[in-house]
Amino acid sequence: MSGAGAADRSGGAESFDAMWRGLASLGRDAGSGGYRRYAWTGADLECRAWFRAQAESRGLVHETDRNGNQWAWHGDPLAGDAVVTGSHLDSVPDGGAFDGPLGVVSSFAALDELRRRGAEFTKPFAVVNFGDEEGARFGLACVGSRLASGALTAEDAHRLRDGDGVPLPRAMEAAGYDPDAIGPDPGRLAGIGAFVELHVEQGRALDLSGDPVGVASAIWPHGRWRFDFRGEANHAGTTRLADRRDPMLTYAETVLAARREAELAGGLATFGKIAVEPNGVNAIPSLVRGWLDSRAADQATLDAVVTGVERAAREHAERAGIDLDVVRESFTPVVEFQHALRDEIRRTLGERDGAGRGVPVLGTGAGHDAGILSASVPTAMLFVRNPTGISHSPSEHAAEDDCVAGVRALADVLEGLACS
Amino acid sequence: MSGAGAADRSGGAESFDAMWRGLASLGRDAGSGGYRRYAWTGADLECRAWFRAQAESRGLVHETDRNGNQWAWHGDPLAGDAVVTGSHLDSVPDGGAFDGPLGVVSSFAALDELRRRGAEFTKPFAVVNFGDEEGARFGLACVGSRLASGALTAEDAHRLRDGDGVPLPRAMEAAGYDPDAIGPDPGRLAGIGAFVELHVEQGRALDLSGDPVGVASAIWPHGRWRFDFRGEANHAGTTRLADRRDPMLTYAETVLAARREAELAGGLATFGKIAVEPNGVNAIPSLVRGWLDSRAADQATLDAVVTGVERAAREHAERAGIDLDVVRESFTPVVEFQHALRDEIRRTLGERDGAGRGVPVLGTGAGHDAGILSASVPTAMLFVRNPTGISHSPSEHAAEDDCVAGVRALADVLEGLACS
Repeated sequence: MSGAGAADRSGGAESFDAMWRGLASLGRDAGSGGYRRYAWTGADLECRAWFRAQAESRGLVHETDRNGNQWAWHGDPLAGDAVVTGSHLDSVPDGGAFDGPLGVVSSFAALDELRRRGAEFTKPFAVVNFGDEEGARFGLACVGSRLASGALTAEDAHRLRDGDGVPLPRAMEAAGYDPDAIGPDPGRLAGIGAFVELHVEQGRALDLSGDPVGVASAIWPHGRWRFDFRGEANHAGTTRLADRRDPMLTYAETVLAARREAELAGGLATFGKIAVEPNGVNAIPSLVRGWLDSRAADQATLDAVVTGVERAAREHAERAGIDLDVVRESFTPVVEFQHALRDEIRRTLGERDGAGRGVPVLGTGAGHDAGILSASVPTAMLFVRNPTGISHSPSEHAAEDDCVAGVRALADVLEGLACS
Repeated sequence: MSGAGAADRSGGAESFDAMWRGLASLGRDAGSGGYRRYAWTGADLECRAWFRAQAESRGLVHETDRNGNQWAWHGDPLAGDAVVTGSHLDSVPDGGAFDGPLGVVSSFAALDELRRRGAEFTKPFAVVNFGDEEGARFGLACVGSRLASGALTAEDAHRLRDGDGVPLPRAMEAAGYDPDAIGPDPGRLAGIGAFVELHVEQGRALDLSGDPVGVASAIWPHGRWRFDFRGEANHAGTTRLADRRDPMLTYAETVLAARREAELAGGLATFGKIAVEPNGVNAIPSLVRGWLDSRAADQATLDAVVTGVERAAREHAERAGIDLDVVRESFTPVVEFQHALRDEIRRTLGERDGAGRGVPVLGTGAGHDAGILSASVPTAMLFVRNPTGISHSPSEHAAEDDCVAGVRALADVLEGLACS
């Protein structure tokens, strides 16, 4: 394995910069400065065209699978034991430039780096762009990888609709894809020996530890709970306080309780989405619907947070004459990435750094395609330092040096896996 | 003046019931059971056709003025010193059956009652249906009376848009009305000697005092304030609690502060409308926008409530690193109804009841066309008991006996004003 000298680093940086500039304007909102790359929209198709052009300019064989995921192959896809890397190009509403694209760009840049090193591939290799990872349009994350792995059935996917009521099949058709083809792809996944996803960190663990790159241990258990607070619609200008059953008050108590319970237990709890009926300035609401997102490093902590929030909400609701329904809308148990692959990656990166303290291993509260695939494929993740921890925001950022360090680490890992 | 015997009452009830049945199905949503009679929609046009039919079946001259308000005339509209009664037929989203329609139906029923009594009109008389009182579609209340009185200019009205972006002029055109004709109507208002609006009470004052009918003293000062809480968008699954600037928490603190301040000062404060960006389940919001509706019996109390809410909001915002803007979006000072007309009405209703304790006089926190007109026309309001106080809701209700008592009181008042 070759070390990454100054010449390599500057070569990697150039290839990285050129790709980064090519993506920078696609789907960017001039007002917010954030990205709006939603599945099967024009912005998504522009990103897909960019991916195909990157593949073809490197002499890779471009392929779109039955679920709309894009693959760029070096070597024979059917030979088995392939080494795959990549991420996604779609975004949340007003998302940042790094979440997803950093992984795809770094994958191509790592291939460029390996070619510069003169590395010989002994296994098939591919860069992948998974479709609809963020779920911003149809409300379900990781649709491309869920379909491929069978975690989402074609029937259920066909029932997904966007905010304007457009069904997923119509959106795929409008983008020129065949919605009747979607479904599980076990043969494809069986041909993958290892999948590595590089991602900008979405927290500050690496910033706090002072490392440019880390390796994922696990994706935290996480879920979404819908709290429906039902009171009594009434006139805000004439109804005595004593006669009110105002669900906004109970919602507010619950928002504050969620923060307290998360602090107490050491987990995360967020009310970021709300729907109010009738949502009129002069109307006491009949219904306030709030969604709780909660995550924690382990199941017991997550249970403590959610149980605590629900108990507080029920106490306040009962006192205020509010009817409360709590519905768990989704839940994902902890995902532990494969220990053997993780240990191999740590060895590779540790050797490179000599007898140093080694590369840090960290958990994450965010879901990823790597988490979905880990049920059927040996999977690992690399994280690149995020100096503010901000993600899903136009302010999301990673320093150029850290991005180059990420490319180099990914190249080292891929060299170890595919060129040994 | 004739007393209202059993025969009269049953006659009034029949005429009332027939009209009530005719209106019951217009613009009613089968799901909620509430009314969706928004300005210039099909449901509004059905209500307008109903009004015209009621006018014509009574031999009244039907007329739509330049601002889309409907008039049903008995006698010469141009003779001056006219006595006018009425209300509106449009509704809030999922509104009740009584708010507005009770006043219009009672006006026609009172005319029927006066004819049964053989009362001779010595002044011109009209029933009016003011357009777009609730402002449910274009966001501004009392558009018909505001335009007529000059409180709203044609230019400003032309700029109003509904939630789908349809401008008011296009909506009027689509309904067959001429938007270029709208504007002040001083001659029409100058020809009115008195306007009396009957309305279902939107609180429980009459229920608590045990009276079927009351007289309005004043419309409370009231206003709307927009609170923009700006924090930092971030990933709900990965951002440490300590690193968050979550505006939903400050919003929640402010909602609870508003309730406390209103209780302390003896006013009303409500957060019933909210807009959140990006409003995603897994996103810490960048912006939470909440609207405060506040009202009180007098200006000092209102000031105390709003100042207290804003102070609490600023304290919580500063502590949490949230930027806060507070914008007063609308404000209406106290409207005192004309004392001479109110006293005359109280004498009329008091005489009828003999040496009783008199009809109660009460303030209201709700705006009305009568409040708009009171700037240019001697104006009064009658309230009919609401046993639950609920309004702007499908559960809004008034007992049949109380509605009949309202018709009788209105007939007595109109007889005193127009037939003396």
